Amino acid sequence: MNPKRILLPQSDIPTAWYNLQADLPEPLPPVIHPGTGQPIGPDDLRPIFADELIMQEVSQERWVEIPEEVRDVYAIWRPSPLVRATGLERELKTPARIYFKDESHSPPGSHKPNTAVAQAYYNKKQGVKRLTTETGAGQWGSSLSFACSLFDLECKVYMVKCSYQQKPYRRSMMQLWGGQVSPSPSDETEAGRQILAADPDCPGSLGIAISEAVEAAVKDEDAKYTLGSVLNHVMLHQSIIGLEAEKQMEIAGDSPDVVIGCVGGGSNYAGLAFPFLRHKIAGKEIRFVAAEPRACPTMSRGEYRYDFGDTTKLTPLMKMFTLGHSFVPPGIHAGGLRYHGMAPSVSAAVKAGLIESVALHQVECFDAARMFAATEGIIPAPETSHAIRAAIDEAVKCRETGEEKCILFNFSGHGLCDLGSYDKYLAGELDDFEYPQEKIQEAIAELPEMG
Amino acid sequence: MNPKRILLPQSDIPTAWYNLQADLPEPLPPVIHPGTGQPIGPDDLRPIFADELIMQEVSQERWVEIPEEVRDVYAIWRPSPLVRATGLERELKTPARIYFKDESHSPPGSHKPNTAVAQAYYNKKQGVKRLTTETGAGQWGSSLSFACSLFDLECKVYMVKCSYQQKPYRRSMMQLWGGQVSPSPSDETEAGRQILAADPDCPGSLGIAISEAVEAAVKDEDAKYTLGSVLNHVMLHQSIIGLEAEKQMEIAGDSPDVVIGCVGGGSNYAGLAFPFLRHKIAGKEIRFVAAEPRACPTMSRGEYRYDFGDTTKLTPLMKMFTLGHSFVPPGIHAGGLRYHGMAPSVSAAVKAGLIESVALHQVECFDAARMFAATEGIIPAPETSHAIRAAIDEAVKCRETGEEKCILFNFSGHGLCDLGSYDKYLAGELDDFEYPQEKIQEAIAELPEMG
Repeated sequence: MNPKRILLPQSDIPTAWYNLQADLPEPLPPVIHPGTGQPIGPDDLRPIFADELIMQEVSQERWVEIPEEVRDVYAIWRPSPLVRATGLERELKTPARIYFKDESHSPPGSHKPNTAVAQAYYNKKQGVKRLTTETGAGQWGSSLSFACSLFDLECKVYMVKCSYQQKPYRRSMMQLWGGQVSPSPSDETEAGRQILAADPDCPGSLGIAISEAVEAAVKDEDAKYTLGSVLNHVMLHQSIIGLEAEKQMEIAGDSPDVVIGCVGGGSNYAGLAFPFLRHKIAGKEIRFVAAEPRACPTMSRGEYRYDFGDTTKLTPLMKMFTLGHSFVPPGIHAGGLRYHGMAPSVSAAVKAGLIESVALHQVECFDAARMFAATEGIIPAPETSHAIRAAIDEAVKCRETGEEKCILFNFSGHGLCDLGSYDKYLAGELDDFEYPQEKIQEAIAELPEMG
Repeated sequence: MNPKRILLPQSDIPTAWYNLQADLPEPLPPVIHPGTGQPIGPDDLRPIFADELIMQEVSQERWVEIPEEVRDVYAIWRPSPLVRATGLERELKTPARIYFKDESHSPPGSHKPNTAVAQAYYNKKQGVKRLTTETGAGQWGSSLSFACSLFDLECKVYMVKCSYQQKPYRRSMMQLWGGQVSPSPSDETEAGRQILAADPDCPGSLGIAISEAVEAAVKDEDAKYTLGSVLNHVMLHQSIIGLEAEKQMEIAGDSPDVVIGCVGGGSNYAGLAFPFLRHKIAGKEIRFVAAEPRACPTMSRGEYRYDFGDTTKLTPLMKMFTLGHSFVPPGIHAGGLRYHGMAPSVSAAVKAGLIESVALHQVECFDAARMFAATEGIIPAPETSHAIRAAIDEAVKCRETGEEKCILFNFSGHGLCDLGSYDKYLAGELDDFEYPQEKIQEAIAELPEMG
């Protein structure tokens, strides 16, 4: 009998990250400075990001060495298990073989620490004392707090005020790891004070929180800003997921026909998919399926063009699939998938036809999560349930066609801090959302005309 | 460099549990029928427990085979990692080597599924359709729901009403795994109805919930009752923790001088300690330290004598360390350690001088948990924090004496569903409790005079 979980020893933690930029059919379009309209350079980014991360952002090297200090911290939970979903296969009566890469065993419970640890390390090495960031539901903020506590850095998190009030568990987690958490908008920054002056009861948004975190970093010479998704260096760090999975699939004597993940900013999916994508670029037949919420259908209904990363137009312009920076997705429970844009590297791969997308309703995803919990035992994060739904749909197709496909998906995180959402699901209180096309067109019509 | 985590392959999941009863210097005193005053026999237990579990309860065999079907489910998260607490060692500047066995990776997040899965399996095999149980904070109820969902059994949990209201996350978890959860006292049982008639606002207690769960099992011929701690068969199933740890310590080229765990009913500590305890019985020098709350000091201030397992005097009488069945511990956050008694096997080992006990205040335990989270990354359950505190205290002693001891403790579960307690701790709102000796004497004075 094959083992349920394929484990690797610590010595098999990869020694280098994989950079898809080296293998993309075309180079990524340049990032544009919002003031000058010209491609942005390292000097523009230096007040915000650590130097090493700026270099990684534009690196064309295929392999980037993982520092020993980062691998030492990875060893707390990595290599993560590759699991054969035998219980789910039985339940579905499918001839497909389903595997998932289980990223839920990191202390904060998701894939986010893969990059948080690396970003904390490079900043520490450069003498930075303090990192700032924003967080919505709290997965990223808690991962950065975790990483900062291990590298003895201060951590300042601006948490969207309504989440701060609704998700006390994630806030407590950050504080236990020593993070300082402020509900955003706060009175600590110019941006926050302006917004509070206009609307003292403003519930906050990710766009506002980004403005506060960037301002806090720029105004403090001991501080830098960090971002948990979208950027190239984040995708780079996450590639460790797919590199481990590649080795584990080999040990299983198997090879994926379909590689699936959920996508918000794109980092967990890129992490699993990119190392396999290089084999597709080299000619191997593999399908790549990125699952997004129908309530925030960036790839399936957005456009591929230049847009800002944030709502308030402070960031550089990136070419990506976008619903428009003013698009406000409805309050679905997969908070981590509520982003108007998509990582430029994932977007380019979609545009090049290397990755296909599928858009899913939240209730069908919770159905999938319940089936998964009953058959595999593990409770998925609402975000992760999108990957599971897509994997189940593929496996059901195999049952109908008799194809013995190998399906691999990323189990990006557990749902133990999201049980309130399951409560609403079990009580039948969840709604599905579908955006009218005019609304999407309106937001896209606001975008600048370029490239 | 030694690896951070020592992992075993699935093929190293033990094939037999270890039964301390075979090696105890004296046999355990008999369990007494509350009606007849005579030793209880298998027939008395048959309406309540599955036959195989009754046999295991009294078995004197040293090794009990683990069924293949149970090992298959264990493979979802077992073997669990043995982790070298290098971050904690550095922080403490101790010459001691600290290891912990990490039981937090089971889907419900603790060691409890080790026995829940076994109990569900034996009941399923016997044709039982439905399991009943009680739960306080919800760790045991969620573990049994998890196990039942995998073996396709119905699961009925009576959850102490105040916990049902205060801990909605654990309730949701049970329901997601298909468990039916009722706040206890409920109107579904005679016991519950009687109590509600007298006090409609009764907040419930573990004693009442046990009465309801036992009644529900006895009155339904398709149902059996299950218990998550205290009993010999529970300790037997938990021995898998120590058996794996033994092999992992060998791989690490090390051997524990001190074996530490937190104790409520005793099962997580027995699970780690008993396999090592047999070597002490055979002459090897190892210290065993069981950490209990000072607010519920069963071993340090209770007496070793016959008492009931529950508050309402429905269960058989067991010889154990007890504070008296009417003792109501204060509402400390380590809910799993709030038990008036102690597993008879653990009690006997304490009485024989094989295990020593230490009693700890909750605030010093939360301090230890915070240090652990900052240095090892993982957030402990409030129960587990008692083991960590005791381990840190041993390591600090080593710093003072210069002794290079090897300390092993059981990390029984994570605290991701207990972050509300950390919130109160961080806000400085936690109190320590010390019971006046008269109060304890009063409860003990109520005990029947026997043996």
